[in-house]
Amino acid sequence: MLGSTHGTLTTDSRRARVIACGEHPQQVVHGRPAEDGDLDVSGRPLHAAVPDLDRFFRPESVAVVGASDAEGRPNTGITRQLIAWAERVGARLHPVHPTRESVFGIPCSPSVADLPEQVDLAVLLVSDPLPLIGELAEAKVKFAVAFASGFAETGAEGAAAQERLAAAVARSGGMRLLGPNTNLNAFERFRDDLDGPAIALITQSGHQGRPVFSLQELGIRLSHWAPTGNEADLETADFISYFAERPEVGAIAAYVEGLKDGRAFLLAADRAARRGVPVVAVKVGRTETGARTAASHTGKLTGADAVVDAAMRQYGVIRVDGLDELQDTATLLARARRTRAPESAQPHGDGVVVYSISGGTGAHFADLATEAGLPLPTLSETKQAELHQWIPDYLSVANPVDNGGHPVGDWRGPRILDAILDDPAVGVLICPITGPFPPMSDKLAQDLVDAAERTDKLVCVVWGSPVGTEAAYRETLLGSSRVATFRTFANCITAVRAHLDHSRFTAAYRSPFDEAPRSPSPSFRKAQALMRPGQQLSEHAAKQLLRAYGIRVPREQLVTSAAAAVRAASLVGYPVVMKASGARIAHKTELGLVKIGLTSASQIRDAYRELTDIARYEDVSLDGVLVCQMVEQGVEMVVGVTHDDLFGPTVTVGLGGVLVEVLRDSAVRVPPFGEDQARAMLTELRGRALLDGVRGAPPADVDALVEVVLRVQRMALELGDEIAELDINPLMVLPRGQGAVALDALAVCR
Amino acid sequence: MLGSTHGTLTTDSRRARVIACGEHPQQVVHGRPAEDGDLDVSGRPLHAAVPDLDRFFRPESVAVVGASDAEGRPNTGITRQLIAWAERVGARLHPVHPTRESVFGIPCSPSVADLPEQVDLAVLLVSDPLPLIGELAEAKVKFAVAFASGFAETGAEGAAAQERLAAAVARSGGMRLLGPNTNLNAFERFRDDLDGPAIALITQSGHQGRPVFSLQELGIRLSHWAPTGNEADLETADFISYFAERPEVGAIAAYVEGLKDGRAFLLAADRAARRGVPVVAVKVGRTETGARTAASHTGKLTGADAVVDAAMRQYGVIRVDGLDELQDTATLLARARRTRAPESAQPHGDGVVVYSISGGTGAHFADLATEAGLPLPTLSETKQAELHQWIPDYLSVANPVDNGGHPVGDWRGPRILDAILDDPAVGVLICPITGPFPPMSDKLAQDLVDAAERTDKLVCVVWGSPVGTEAAYRETLLGSSRVATFRTFANCITAVRAHLDHSRFTAAYRSPFDEAPRSPSPSFRKAQALMRPGQQLSEHAAKQLLRAYGIRVPREQLVTSAAAAVRAASLVGYPVVMKASGARIAHKTELGLVKIGLTSASQIRDAYRELTDIARYEDVSLDGVLVCQMVEQGVEMVVGVTHDDLFGPTVTVGLGGVLVEVLRDSAVRVPPFGEDQARAMLTELRGRALLDGVRGAPPADVDALVEVVLRVQRMALELGDEIAELDINPLMVLPRGQGAVALDALAVCR
Repeated sequence: MLGSTHGTLTTDSRRARVIACGEHPQQVVHGRPAEDGDLDVSGRPLHAAVPDLDRFFRPESVAVVGASDAEGRPNTGITRQLIAWAERVGARLHPVHPTRESVFGIPCSPSVADLPEQVDLAVLLVSDPLPLIGELAEAKVKFAVAFASGFAETGAEGAAAQERLAAAVARSGGMRLLGPNTNLNAFERFRDDLDGPAIALITQSGHQGRPVFSLQELGIRLSHWAPTGNEADLETADFISYFAERPEVGAIAAYVEGLKDGRAFLLAADRAARRGVPVVAVKVGRTETGARTAASHTGKLTGADAVVDAAMRQYGVIRVDGLDELQDTATLLARARRTRAPESAQPHGDGVVVYSISGGTGAHFADLATEAGLPLPTLSETKQAELHQWIPDYLSVANPVDNGGHPVGDWRGPRILDAILDDPAVGVLICPITGPFPPMSDKLAQDLVDAAERTDKLVCVVWGSPVGTEAAYRETLLGSSRVATFRTFANCITAVRAHLDHSRFTAAYRSPFDEAPRSPSPSFRKAQALMRPGQQLSEHAAKQLLRAYGIRVPREQLVTSAAAAVRAASLVGYPVVMKASGARIAHKTELGLVKIGLTSASQIRDAYRELTDIARYEDVSLDGVLVCQMVEQGVEMVVGVTHDDLFGPTVTVGLGGVLVEVLRDSAVRVPPFGEDQARAMLTELRGRALLDGVRGAPPADVDALVEVVLRVQRMALELGDEIAELDINPLMVLPRGQGAVALDALAVCR
Repeated sequence: MLGSTHGTLTTDSRRARVIACGEHPQQVVHGRPAEDGDLDVSGRPLHAAVPDLDRFFRPESVAVVGASDAEGRPNTGITRQLIAWAERVGARLHPVHPTRESVFGIPCSPSVADLPEQVDLAVLLVSDPLPLIGELAEAKVKFAVAFASGFAETGAEGAAAQERLAAAVARSGGMRLLGPNTNLNAFERFRDDLDGPAIALITQSGHQGRPVFSLQELGIRLSHWAPTGNEADLETADFISYFAERPEVGAIAAYVEGLKDGRAFLLAADRAARRGVPVVAVKVGRTETGARTAASHTGKLTGADAVVDAAMRQYGVIRVDGLDELQDTATLLARARRTRAPESAQPHGDGVVVYSISGGTGAHFADLATEAGLPLPTLSETKQAELHQWIPDYLSVANPVDNGGHPVGDWRGPRILDAILDDPAVGVLICPITGPFPPMSDKLAQDLVDAAERTDKLVCVVWGSPVGTEAAYRETLLGSSRVATFRTFANCITAVRAHLDHSRFTAAYRSPFDEAPRSPSPSFRKAQALMRPGQQLSEHAAKQLLRAYGIRVPREQLVTSAAAAVRAASLVGYPVVMKASGARIAHKTELGLVKIGLTSASQIRDAYRELTDIARYEDVSLDGVLVCQMVEQGVEMVVGVTHDDLFGPTVTVGLGGVLVEVLRDSAVRVPPFGEDQARAMLTELRGRALLDGVRGAPPADVDALVEVVLRVQRMALELGDEIAELDINPLMVLPRGQGAVALDALAVCR
């Protein structure tokens, strides 16, 4: 039977309900891994297409079309850099120029067709790459890079040119294009003397990527830089998918102004999540101003920011705001992958210990860390006693551990560090050093670097001096590939928090794409018959839509006479609510088109007359009057579907009534998502406590609410592209065990 | 008549109502500046005592008690540093030691009594300074500094020793003491080659102050460092007051773990606010963990954090979280004072323009800046046309201004900068340079430094390279004393926001101490008769307290029989509410001790019986039953008084009903405050829109609500130290023009 949305569920049955509409379990594909070409019920892919970019980053042969060695031409500098790069990566380089014999002494081909061999990569230094695409495809070139600007970033005309370029590439039979409007960043000089897991970088702006690239000067390993430019073909998502598969990549850092395809991004993030590779991203577009400016810069969509934010969280993508946070968080996450314990190691907790040479520093750091949600466990009595062998008794070593300074100067320093790191509750040690005092801080820095070599736990240092030229910082700390060194408390806390969150996320991750429905449910066929393209449905029709998906609505009848209303009331059961029903009625309550708490036949007759009078007076066309069961006790929520430009249909849940209006207290998710995410939506609500029961109210039926969210998701998946807007407002969530009832609904078809 | 709290008020009459209880205008002291020794009605001072610390920071003669030149003794290093410092500041230094003839060749006195002259400053390097205090006072020493530790920071015994020390200083007849548990920071080597307004630094931890002090190495001028230690005598507030008067001080930076005296801090902040000197402070204690750890470190109170936060905002103190923010914000504020326009200059707007060599950088910065509330005006068409003389047409120059890079390289660079800075709407120019590209960024840095010399507006640069050893950064930018240079977008935005906020704050600032009531109102005498020390008042008595202060309560009568209840109802007017009344009743509603909407004598008799039955059953002692006028339409608010450990009585206002319970949506202020602050409290509420009217509800009588807040403040000022807790919950705020009624009240006497 439909609507039986409550009751006790075992863990297994909950898993089975993920995404699916409870009514039709046979429609669910349990845990079947998605395959290439698989589509979900909405026709969207279930699997990222991972391009093989090995020959892009490490080609055996390269053509430079438009190569030059003429003094003063911009292409000359570029050609010189490409020659140097090709030498470094061991690629054969072939200049292409219609008239030159040679460039920098290398023999020139007059055209791509005349190249002496099939090349992996063609760098196009010409102002219009379009005419070359056919020729490149003919020559079986694997990858092309177009530097030319003047495309989507310049307006409508440029966008049209870019579409022609993209179409030509699509016809090329497999060649992939980076750009247009990109640059040399992929072919920069990478340090090859650094070891450990590397950061792979993806940016939509060369200038904005430079700080992350420069991290190499601080001893942090970078493996790749993909400057995606206008993304006519290859896009950010492609590089995320590719980097997630590379063994040398410890973390992916991305600077994103706009996304080309929301689904492709999610699938790429899913791929990284499956492999536990963290993705850290700056995404411009927190504000209207930012979104508009970014869009004019890249010609791409920025998407509704709250949706972008939610989508990233669903797939464990760590969103940060500043480039400094991007650098510091990616660095820590890459290092954390190195220090990940081997299978044989003892598992340990994720407790964070703050260790300092000043009680003030420890208190300040602990204050900010606790506020940011880092777990700072109190060390055990035994551990504290152990630490007090080396640290005077009047100092607190409970966590933060204040050593008072002196023990750092001698043999006690390393003992203390090892003792802390040896505690099974501890996963991270953070040592903030705000002021350098060389006799003390130089040795402390070295002790920390040494201790980090002896442990698989994370060791972080904050070097707070604004000067930053001190040897302990530049040489000792930055010279270590195990210690993560920060300049500010805030960035250290952000990065450690990201690491702990990402570890938890990865451990619990189950890809929602594996369990996404591939074919429509019987609900879908019933629902489709109700759709009226381009129109708003009447409340009655919208509720039928909900019923089709097993969402409970009040007992109600649509009537067209006062006498029928009285008959309906006795079927529905007193007291009743009466509402005007019609295809285009908004603000029913404000217009007086809702009458509640009617308890007698005479009240019903009066109400019927009044409603039809008001409708006539307000010139509202009715398809009748709804006589509905009255449902009073419960928590009013709002559940709905909204269409996002970037991600398509999204599901929203919020607190109803005055709260949604005044506080806009709601949470959003992009389908497909599992029950875990539906529950997580509720914990995001600031007014969540209302569901637990306040002022003596009983706890609400949260399971039933979650079930409604999942059923609405199923609607979004099956009907999403036909629905402009769906709002259940209010959904009355009854006391625990009693379910949830959609008291009113609005549906607008696209 | 009491309670006439609404109606139109002219600006003047509003000013007159500041702080005062409207009923008693004769009690208000209008704009009379507070004087030393003045006390407000609560007996608290109205004026900061500003110590003259000139001879502390620049003494003519110094004694070092416990001086040493013996190899290996800690005092030897300290003595050496003090000798060097005395030479630099031109002070005569006299070592004091019972047995030595001389120290480092300087003749030694055996005791303070034997000093060759009266000294300004005595530095005490002895482990127990207490026995010396009498001797120092005898010798007319102006200032003493005690380095010894082992006082309040170590626990109860140390705290008692510290109290004895403080008492001895208080008896000394004018000598002031810094410490104990302080250090050499005040006597460090300050650079004297830097000019412009300086930062004066106050810290409760030497290690935590080091980064700000190190700013000198980056070309930022520091004038003083006050390491206040345990504050047995001189405290943070004293240094704020003193620094606010010094002409060379452009901004005060403070690192505070706990405050010794809340009122002294407010008065010092008031002093700085009157003089327009910005105070930037880190205050530890955002969390329980932080507060506890800090308290154990300093032995001082940290106060309820929300109250500290509010108190700081009331006096324009800029609270930041990180030491990096402290550095960057103080630097910008000090520089902003230098560039402050002379009287003759054209006043200009506070618009912020973002100027960059990359569209991506501009979009990203603008996004974060807009989110943080910085005003980024769109430049005028004329200005944009002017900029397009030098910047290609396809780039946006509306703000952010994207120059595309090339114009920076030639003569156009300075023209563009001047043209932007010449715009009267612009007050601040920010140029984020994320990646150094020497051919471009070196010249850009120099152009920015030069442009800053030609304007009185603020020029800020973000140097985003994580490396930070580039010449353009180290030499050009940090070499400028007009450009404020940052390392991160976030810190630049925080600092510019602080500058704009502080400018607005200073321009509008009126000291609430000038208008604070000095003598009790007639309300006070009426109210005092109602107080019952140590007891909770009955609802009826609590409401009488409110009536005494002119706060409207419903018509109501306290009755002790059903017959009297019926008589009362006809006087009060139907429908009525009936409530059990007694001295210790909490959770009336949950216990069923409230009956609403009673419309007939028989209902009243039934209700009376039921209430007294429940009271008997629940063993609640009643002083009667309240029969009250029923007030339905309005917005439920909560207004109250809470006693804060640090600041004494505070006034709170919040949204009532479910909102206060679920969202804890409230704002707090420390008296005295003016009507402006009472109104600002309401804008802090997240659910503030409820007062404006939602879902067709009429706007609420905000003026009446503000009046209630001010009347409650008057209660807090006059009775605050006798009230443990006062809660009006709910205060029903009626539609505009109809006032506000306290429907229920709880009062607990201390």
